[in-house]
Amino acid sequence: MRKNITLKHIAKELEVSISTVSKALKNSEEIGKDTKEKVQAFAKLYNYRPNNIAISLKNRRTKTIGVIIPDIIHHFFTTVFRGIEKYANRHGYNVIICVSDESFDREVINMEMLANGSIDGFIMSLSAETQLKNDFNHLKEVTEQGIPLVLFDRVTDEVKCDKVIINDKEIAYKAVQMFIDEGKKRIALISTDDYLNVSAKRAIGYQEALRANNLEINESLVLILPYFGDSSNAISEFFDNNDFDAMLCVNEIFAVQCMREAQERGKRIPEDISVIGFTNGILSQYSSPRLTAIAQHGEQMGETAAQMLIERVEAELELDEDEENFRTEVIQATIINGGTTSNP
Amino acid sequence: MRKNITLKHIAKELEVSISTVSKALKNSEEIGKDTKEKVQAFAKLYNYRPNNIAISLKNRRTKTIGVIIPDIIHHFFTTVFRGIEKYANRHGYNVIICVSDESFDREVINMEMLANGSIDGFIMSLSAETQLKNDFNHLKEVTEQGIPLVLFDRVTDEVKCDKVIINDKEIAYKAVQMFIDEGKKRIALISTDDYLNVSAKRAIGYQEALRANNLEINESLVLILPYFGDSSNAISEFFDNNDFDAMLCVNEIFAVQCMREAQERGKRIPEDISVIGFTNGILSQYSSPRLTAIAQHGEQMGETAAQMLIERVEAELELDEDEENFRTEVIQATIINGGTTSNP
Repeated sequence: MRKNITLKHIAKELEVSISTVSKALKNSEEIGKDTKEKVQAFAKLYNYRPNNIAISLKNRRTKTIGVIIPDIIHHFFTTVFRGIEKYANRHGYNVIICVSDESFDREVINMEMLANGSIDGFIMSLSAETQLKNDFNHLKEVTEQGIPLVLFDRVTDEVKCDKVIINDKEIAYKAVQMFIDEGKKRIALISTDDYLNVSAKRAIGYQEALRANNLEINESLVLILPYFGDSSNAISEFFDNNDFDAMLCVNEIFAVQCMREAQERGKRIPEDISVIGFTNGILSQYSSPRLTAIAQHGEQMGETAAQMLIERVEAELELDEDEENFRTEVIQATIINGGTTSNP
Repeated sequence: MRKNITLKHIAKELEVSISTVSKALKNSEEIGKDTKEKVQAFAKLYNYRPNNIAISLKNRRTKTIGVIIPDIIHHFFTTVFRGIEKYANRHGYNVIICVSDESFDREVINMEMLANGSIDGFIMSLSAETQLKNDFNHLKEVTEQGIPLVLFDRVTDEVKCDKVIINDKEIAYKAVQMFIDEGKKRIALISTDDYLNVSAKRAIGYQEALRANNLEINESLVLILPYFGDSSNAISEFFDNNDFDAMLCVNEIFAVQCMREAQERGKRIPEDISVIGFTNGILSQYSSPRLTAIAQHGEQMGETAAQMLIERVEAELELDEDEENFRTEVIQATIINGGTTSNP
């Protein structure tokens, strides 16, 4: 008989999704009785035991941290990783990374693989699809088995664990206020879908700042772009159809694309259009003019996450389920003045 | 008694470097008799057995590939990773990444950790320090135990294994020829230290192209920059002291820095100075004008490496040491015309 059966095996065998298996094993009401019984019977037959994870962990420390990030293309995640690595190495820990590619299934598979005795704890940022599905059973599984977990940046209230976030709403508010102080009035927001909780928070900050300054909230000045893929046509159309004098972009790729579009149309930056983008990454640094950027202090975020995790690992506390002593650390983002805004 | 003793433990205990331990266990002549005896005695006492790796591997397939890359900041390595992941996932394999941070010790530690039964084989690009030290015992250890290894981009002749490289010399030659065809005559090379074998190969291609066109090889037109850290002063000085009309840069960070310096000095690109840079990464794409870039086809390189590794893993061939059936695949780099060269 097969050893180490995983959620993926069960899903494949029964031709259902990993999410269905995970929910069925949790006895979720979302899943039909038939499917639940089938999954549970199969899991029993093949001796599926999520708990062997916890057992193997108690037996030995691996001195290794597992990191799962949504992608390694966006500079922000790589800087967080550097911070994690820096702190971890200094304290005698290795770091393993897996990439979810914004996919729920891949996040679950990676988590199962690493939880299988390879690591002492997880540091993670949720995939876009996990946030869209709003399904966090795989995280709960891990925390319930006593494996320490720290979520950063893309977090959820649904999972009780340590978290590190930035003040997304407040810093978006501040950026919009900066535009208004320059005399700008028609401020656009270039964002992604709201199921990414950080985008949602930034949108609220944007709206609150407009409201506080008695400026109209104009839905047509909000452009929602896909997180991946070519957005140049959508941006070009947005320029065709709208009149604005400032753009707040939720990532630096959007920001440099908007700058290029403006420049190709003969607009002067910042005289005609000011631009602020999230993350002072490699694109912001080398853009011309240099982008006024919101520094998310990814490295600091990573160091904080690693510190929280290692403290938790080394404390070896059996956490009481009622005793919610989890912390949420908020890293203060800052705006770095570049040449795409005019300082008052 | 401690189980699973590693090279790192021995090095720490005896207060010598990991490299010394590794060489001493191999009975290397570089290490003094005293040290060798001490290391070997200690290894014996604590039952150091590199072979437990191979044993655990034969018992089970993990369906996981271990990738060790020098950094995750340079776009090239992240695209190779994407290629590896794409191919691996399609064939039912997971991928774990570790980052050596260009450090020999970290490369060895990561390799030991992963070889400890977590993975079926390695895909790696050597750290700068490993190439500088010219010490590959940790790789030989792994291959001698029958763990499949594929090296990509930064490879060495010292280790017998499958390899994937690009035609660095030929494409550098082609880039220089392209400058000459535009009418450029004073062609600079912006590179890193030669111990990175790819830089060395590119330098040879650069020199051969100049020679073939009866142009003088002028050492003062070669600028060697550190791989990491701020190079802006060195670049600025280079512009102060030299007169050139074209620049071949071994990575895109150098290329965009040179472009910015040229633009700040009022030089027109490509009329006054043409620029070609290795890697059509995110900086090349968004630079203004768009950089004429050497596409290293990282994703293709990654897919090829993953294919070679998985074939090796699944063949389960006991390789005869004499039978050298290892392959080296050469990916053909191409030049993508941007706005930093004028096409004839």
